[in-house]
Amino acid sequence: MNKLYVVGIGPGAYEDMTLKAIKTLENCDVIVGYTVYVDLVKEHFAQKEFLTTPMRKEVERCRLAFEQAGSGKITAMICSGDAGVYGMSGLMLELSEEYPDVEVEIVPGVTAALSGGAVLGAPLMHDFAVISLSDLMTPWETIEKRLLAAAEADLAICLYNPSSRKRADYLKKACDIMLKAKKPETVCGIVSQIGREGEHMELYSLAELKDVQTDMFTTVFIGNSSTKEINGKMVTPRGYEIRG
Amino acid sequence: MNKLYVVGIGPGAYEDMTLKAIKTLENCDVIVGYTVYVDLVKEHFAQKEFLTTPMRKEVERCRLAFEQAGSGKITAMICSGDAGVYGMSGLMLELSEEYPDVEVEIVPGVTAALSGGAVLGAPLMHDFAVISLSDLMTPWETIEKRLLAAAEADLAICLYNPSSRKRADYLKKACDIMLKAKKPETVCGIVSQIGREGEHMELYSLAELKDVQTDMFTTVFIGNSSTKEINGKMVTPRGYEIRG
Repeated sequence: MNKLYVVGIGPGAYEDMTLKAIKTLENCDVIVGYTVYVDLVKEHFAQKEFLTTPMRKEVERCRLAFEQAGSGKITAMICSGDAGVYGMSGLMLELSEEYPDVEVEIVPGVTAALSGGAVLGAPLMHDFAVISLSDLMTPWETIEKRLLAAAEADLAICLYNPSSRKRADYLKKACDIMLKAKKPETVCGIVSQIGREGEHMELYSLAELKDVQTDMFTTVFIGNSSTKEINGKMVTPRGYEIRG
Repeated sequence: MNKLYVVGIGPGAYEDMTLKAIKTLENCDVIVGYTVYVDLVKEHFAQKEFLTTPMRKEVERCRLAFEQAGSGKITAMICSGDAGVYGMSGLMLELSEEYPDVEVEIVPGVTAALSGGAVLGAPLMHDFAVISLSDLMTPWETIEKRLLAAAEADLAICLYNPSSRKRADYLKKACDIMLKAKKPETVCGIVSQIGREGEHMELYSLAELKDVQTDMFTTVFIGNSSTKEINGKMVTPRGYEIRG
């Protein structure tokens, strides 16, 4: 059976990959991915064949990987973060029906909710929701509904794809919705370029977050009603009694 | 400054750790943890000093780690999965105020939502909520409210701590709540002993899941309205058009 791995490489640094992800890429003949992610790993797997496609060419990229695997080469499709969180594993499994001679295996990785959370402190220690603000494939009304539901249920919230050039005001709109159910002083944080050069974190109140400019390399965290700032870190307590 | 690392070791297998987690443990003098997790890593870090405390002794375990670090030993507190998702990083950062001579650093890991998701397929490809059914430190009413909100917003849902001996019927109760807003045929899955000997996965409908017996080593996934079964895998599509 021809093997095709879908590998989450984590936030970007080599040592943020799992050992299994590293071994999987070492054992591959071909590594397929979005140009930016391939550039992140290339130097560590110098002997491999690399194939890239630009953004928005996800279906073509996946088919390219199936064709490589189908020709007998051990192939890996890489995704940043985890392959299963806004990554390629879903599309790969959907397409796998068309390529019965290729066996797909998913290798998980550290998604930005976790790697960014570790930089900020411990924002997701209790129940939380992960919501993407990209409306490329999801109606904005659905995103609004999810933001409000998560805020009303006092979940901590992690936002992926908070904005882009075309969607410059989406984070502002999202904050307005969450402010219907979360207090303006709710502790929030952003992390950009997680694990890469220029990594940057900042804490804000939800009222302040409204006017923060982010980009597609930023992950945003909104606390629950218990979240607090401790020594410059964002901490959502789980509820342990620490004073005897 | 004395260093204290809070390290997520992933689901359990050595190769599911990140390279950074492995290097951090290799550089430590002392590794502190819950007995079960220490047993998972012990053989790979044979030269280290190991200190364990049983379940429910979380505050004592964290203080033990701070005392070790404060005495000048490089110390790591290990957690299964990610340190920041129902792990110890929040409590450690709360306690850090009492130990100003110790610097805490969080090393993220692959939490069960991701590692279990990869075993099942791609259940969390789109917006999702992570909710623990443990009511040890959270009122059951809060948990119910969150389950209903997540179901009404058509989020995929990942449940941690679905049951224990004392809470044998909690998953059933949770399913009843989610059935108020999700269809009985919603595709669901469970994974137990992720990445360990005896790993097991199974797909169910939400109606069937109600009567499934789980334990504390099981993670439960409930799909959104688009989630489907493909070749025995649970897949939540992100929305790509795959037919030209």
